[in-house]
Amino acid sequence: MAGDVFDSMVTLATELQTLICGSLEGVEPDAVFESTHWERGGGGGGHTRVLQGGSVFEKAGVNTSVVYGAVPPGLATELPGDGETFRATGISLVLHPRSPMVPTTHANYRRIERGEHGWFGGGADLTPHYLFEEDARHFHRVHAEVCAAHPGVADYPSWKQACDDYFYLPHRREHRGVGGIFFDHVEGGDDVLAFVAGAGHAFLDAYLPIVRRRMATGYGDRERTHQLVRRGRYVEFNLVYDRGTTFGLRSGGNVESILMSLPDPVRWVHEHEPEPDSWEARTIAALREPRDWLGSTPA
Amino acid sequence: MAGDVFDSMVTLATELQTLICGSLEGVEPDAVFESTHWERGGGGGGHTRVLQGGSVFEKAGVNTSVVYGAVPPGLATELPGDGETFRATGISLVLHPRSPMVPTTHANYRRIERGEHGWFGGGADLTPHYLFEEDARHFHRVHAEVCAAHPGVADYPSWKQACDDYFYLPHRREHRGVGGIFFDHVEGGDDVLAFVAGAGHAFLDAYLPIVRRRMATGYGDRERTHQLVRRGRYVEFNLVYDRGTTFGLRSGGNVESILMSLPDPVRWVHEHEPEPDSWEARTIAALREPRDWLGSTPA
Repeated sequence: MAGDVFDSMVTLATELQTLICGSLEGVEPDAVFESTHWERGGGGGGHTRVLQGGSVFEKAGVNTSVVYGAVPPGLATELPGDGETFRATGISLVLHPRSPMVPTTHANYRRIERGEHGWFGGGADLTPHYLFEEDARHFHRVHAEVCAAHPGVADYPSWKQACDDYFYLPHRREHRGVGGIFFDHVEGGDDVLAFVAGAGHAFLDAYLPIVRRRMATGYGDRERTHQLVRRGRYVEFNLVYDRGTTFGLRSGGNVESILMSLPDPVRWVHEHEPEPDSWEARTIAALREPRDWLGSTPA
Repeated sequence: MAGDVFDSMVTLATELQTLICGSLEGVEPDAVFESTHWERGGGGGGHTRVLQGGSVFEKAGVNTSVVYGAVPPGLATELPGDGETFRATGISLVLHPRSPMVPTTHANYRRIERGEHGWFGGGADLTPHYLFEEDARHFHRVHAEVCAAHPGVADYPSWKQACDDYFYLPHRREHRGVGGIFFDHVEGGDDVLAFVAGAGHAFLDAYLPIVRRRMATGYGDRERTHQLVRRGRYVEFNLVYDRGTTFGLRSGGNVESILMSLPDPVRWVHEHEPEPDSWEARTIAALREPRDWLGSTPA
């Protein structure tokens, strides 16, 4: 049955890509997604969709891929199991809004199989540059609900913790954002697939309301500069620590598809420190100490 | 005598920092270097000088440091020798001009000692965004001459090759720039110090004439965009591959001092490809295949 689950995940990833790109275009008046297809030398390929220069989304990428073949040398010890062939499919997205008031977000859902062994991984997380606590709570609540709807598969508390642990920049002593969920090596078939389908669809419920209520909020040069500097932290995480990015670059992955995750533009201003007690400083403080976002504290 | 050589290198690094910052300020009408001092928990510290927002230099950093103490756990296998204490001193600079016509450059000269064992490392390299072959030849010629003046210590041909090998981005199949010289683990005392002093002073002869003859060259949005995208490659190299940067970030180095090397601003435009046979394309082609820059081919 592993084959059926894999094929279903291929279909799901494509459906989610179409749905998510269409929904994002629904709030973006000034740009559309452009598509490119790439092929992998060892087998398979991917479908990269990127929207650039919009008024709501400055850069947004939504990728799907299906790759298969011999286990690459560098992956032999990294992938559980001992088969000599593998296949992997999934969807990965990173959205960089133009407004500093709209948070950056990332989601990824994938299935990997090696020999007879198959598992799922993925998650979704939110990176505000100006923290609206209401938004962080909403994003977490939607993901906690979809986890709760799949007992025995999903575990919001430990996956929330795993997300905080994974998206961490030791050199900045900051988490990348306010988290979400993160899981890996979750074995199973249709039951896990059903959760992944639920989580994939829930992404829009988790993120689009935040876009709609923040996209018209005003901002000035100060907020824009803060956003571009914070985007630098996003680049630092992805290029220094993110396993998917660093492994992909070192193992000959499709560079343009992998690096669609990087924001545009970005700044590195030396010794750029927010004023004490400012909104910027309070947001960064929230990235230093992960919180329970399901509590009932009012906004 | 190792102690004397180390102390002399401390003095040299400080002298070079003062000389280089002063000379750069001599061609920069609109900004000056600001200084910060940092202290290292385990012993020592550094002096970071950064100029930002100038009309000639958009971001320029010239750092010196003297650090010492117990060999950090992560360095135990990385540093030759077997002593339990180490000390290191040096100067490191990265200059990002505002004009796309003026090349980015980097130089670094350092001495490290572990127990009774001491060695030098360093080099200088040039990263043009629009290649003027005359500039690449000049930069290499000056460095070849200072190497030739120190026979038995310096070896331009192999150090030029080492530079091409080190500053390489496998995922882009490009070298970071047109090279220069790169050496490491060069043992010795006053003889090597004399070469390092010569090379450190020669940096200004290698680079400043290029700045002076290109800084008034006109450019437009196309050239600026190309420059900002190429700066993205610089960030990719430094964060993904550069040993000093990645080791420094992972081992608790001074973050602001380490990342002064990153340009500002930077862009990642998806699928940004230069037009065939354009100046941009010819420059990138020169980064794909390292050349002999000492040949007498006219510009």
